[in-house]
Amino acid sequence: MHGITTIRYLTTASFGFGAAGLLADVLSECGVNRPLVVTDPGVRATGLADRVIEPLSGSAPTWFDGTPTNPTEAAVIEAVEIYAAAGCDGVVAIGGGSSIDLAKGVALMVTHPGSLLDYAYVNGGVDRITTAVAPTVAIPTTAGTGSEVGRAAMINVGGRKLDFLSPHLFPSRALCDPELTLGLPPYLTAATGMDALTHCIETYLSPLVNPPAEAIGLDGVERAAGAIEEATRDGRSRPARWNMMMASMEGALTFQKGLGAVHAMAHPLGALDDLSLHHGTLNAVLLPAALRFNKPAASAKYERLRQAAGLDSGVDLADWISELNVRLGLPSGLAAMGVSRETLPRVAKAAAQDPAAETNARPVTEADYEQMLRASLGVASS
Amino acid sequence: MHGITTIRYLTTASFGFGAAGLLADVLSECGVNRPLVVTDPGVRATGLADRVIEPLSGSAPTWFDGTPTNPTEAAVIEAVEIYAAAGCDGVVAIGGGSSIDLAKGVALMVTHPGSLLDYAYVNGGVDRITTAVAPTVAIPTTAGTGSEVGRAAMINVGGRKLDFLSPHLFPSRALCDPELTLGLPPYLTAATGMDALTHCIETYLSPLVNPPAEAIGLDGVERAAGAIEEATRDGRSRPARWNMMMASMEGALTFQKGLGAVHAMAHPLGALDDLSLHHGTLNAVLLPAALRFNKPAASAKYERLRQAAGLDSGVDLADWISELNVRLGLPSGLAAMGVSRETLPRVAKAAAQDPAAETNARPVTEADYEQMLRASLGVASS
Repeated sequence: MHGITTIRYLTTASFGFGAAGLLADVLSECGVNRPLVVTDPGVRATGLADRVIEPLSGSAPTWFDGTPTNPTEAAVIEAVEIYAAAGCDGVVAIGGGSSIDLAKGVALMVTHPGSLLDYAYVNGGVDRITTAVAPTVAIPTTAGTGSEVGRAAMINVGGRKLDFLSPHLFPSRALCDPELTLGLPPYLTAATGMDALTHCIETYLSPLVNPPAEAIGLDGVERAAGAIEEATRDGRSRPARWNMMMASMEGALTFQKGLGAVHAMAHPLGALDDLSLHHGTLNAVLLPAALRFNKPAASAKYERLRQAAGLDSGVDLADWISELNVRLGLPSGLAAMGVSRETLPRVAKAAAQDPAAETNARPVTEADYEQMLRASLGVASS
Repeated sequence: MHGITTIRYLTTASFGFGAAGLLADVLSECGVNRPLVVTDPGVRATGLADRVIEPLSGSAPTWFDGTPTNPTEAAVIEAVEIYAAAGCDGVVAIGGGSSIDLAKGVALMVTHPGSLLDYAYVNGGVDRITTAVAPTVAIPTTAGTGSEVGRAAMINVGGRKLDFLSPHLFPSRALCDPELTLGLPPYLTAATGMDALTHCIETYLSPLVNPPAEAIGLDGVERAAGAIEEATRDGRSRPARWNMMMASMEGALTFQKGLGAVHAMAHPLGALDDLSLHHGTLNAVLLPAALRFNKPAASAKYERLRQAAGLDSGVDLADWISELNVRLGLPSGLAAMGVSRETLPRVAKAAAQDPAAETNARPVTEADYEQMLRASLGVASS
């Protein structure tokens, strides 16, 4: 396999097996002497986060290891208090998208006045977030969200899932070390991996004109399509883990093109409090219906996606994803995830208002969303 | 054709026909009220630069239109004096790589103490160039160097061609408007276009690991290979001009992978004072020999390059470039450009010490360079 390499597009990322070992150097480059380490209880329990932090010399690290499955304002406030009490001067996030997003919220609130709500996208927060954001080093332990090179954080505030968006929320540095994903269980490998694949496909299909982003997205499709089954079946496969982490980063590097119908539906479904559904799993389950819906609008792009995925010219992309989901052991549909048919009109309405809807490959109405959602319910409901 | 689009990787670029019309808005976003407009006598004479500046309301613009073919310290000093005398607060570059590189030098020296030499790469200048660099908007009128999204400037100081390199030298914004290239003469279209194609090929072949950069480079190869002949033959072809300008930007977006033998040789050849050779033309003429030399080291990559360029599997890439050069009316070799066989050992020695040599696809010695240079002399010398 390759050694550690440096990739500089949106965030300077050190990528490769062993990259987490650069943490001490990177903190020093960022001028951070007393980092707050943000992680979640699961990652902490595996010992992974402690192993990454262990080589740091000096005083004992300050921890916030209470990141919830979906980051909340309460968790941000708690972490900010720990940061202030310990005199921290920067943040290290070790975990999946939740820990990295929470770390972004902490880096924001330890340097900006007022409350989190003031900085939400819907409240015009983009213009209030300044370069003052505390330095943050992101170390992903899953290969899916790509939040380590993303400018967004999703945080629940008062029961609403809010978007925080700013060029100043890019982590100062990312350390992408596939070694940290070798122990990721098969189901999480599949679900987070489908998140990465969906990012690459949806952004590629967005009608915005951005050839560098499309080229990166297609490369991500090729890597994810080639590696997701191996990474799920054999978690210790280093080449598969390398390629999945690269596809995850590449997916996020293409976010500037905008997403589409899959994310427009996954966002409100993920906000259903009683279910707490996994974002990557939702994307995997919704992708086939969106690919069927968008097909008439993007035939040349579908052919390039087939080439990138190593599929024959005649293969239906939606069928391919459906069958891939089955092989990966993912749910057969929304019904199997506990979503009831009665919820769908409400979800469709929210989907039509989601910002991701604006860059779908084909114009899409509330009725179209309802149809796609029904089609995604799966066998359990038919 | 497409409208104006925004692409954000290293510099935020507004790309598309009409993008130059965003200048007033972009200057306002950058907080620039009194820009110094840097261009060269040729671009000024065509009226192109005045047309771009004309819509700016307010006081008459301040001009420096004396950019030499290769930017010099003397020109930087002259422009800095004009900037200071007029109370300017930012720079607009309109032109090819020379004007954009000169503008970077001006933006540096109006905000940093000492002399240009202090900031040269060879003198450890990277660490001395700070965020203080004056805001700069780059508007390319050729499709080749990609300097509008690059962090480097090449400026002649005391007879030496020196590299100035810093993340703070990225233009604040780039306005990439293919409209400005519609009148570029065939020879310059071909020569600058081959510069872009060479950037995409050489960076793709570099052994550094950077999949996003490779994906962007391959996309640039596809565009340049598909459009360079049409753009040269029919300068008014808007799709061809769009694709060439995109390939140029994409080439520069891949510079972080490092270049190779072609640039290692083109740099010292370009520094031969008595000849003042065009960089893009040199790249075009040197590329076949480098492709022959590197072939044993990169067979899988050569196959992908062939696919990207739309060539059959059996085609020899070096032959393809040689024949393309002929069809584009470029010189048959270095001899036809006035380079004598006697100069070659000296050039080979300098090439072996050029930083670009470090990322060539295959390790390369001074003797290898001499052999490639001899092979590039062309028919006039045989």
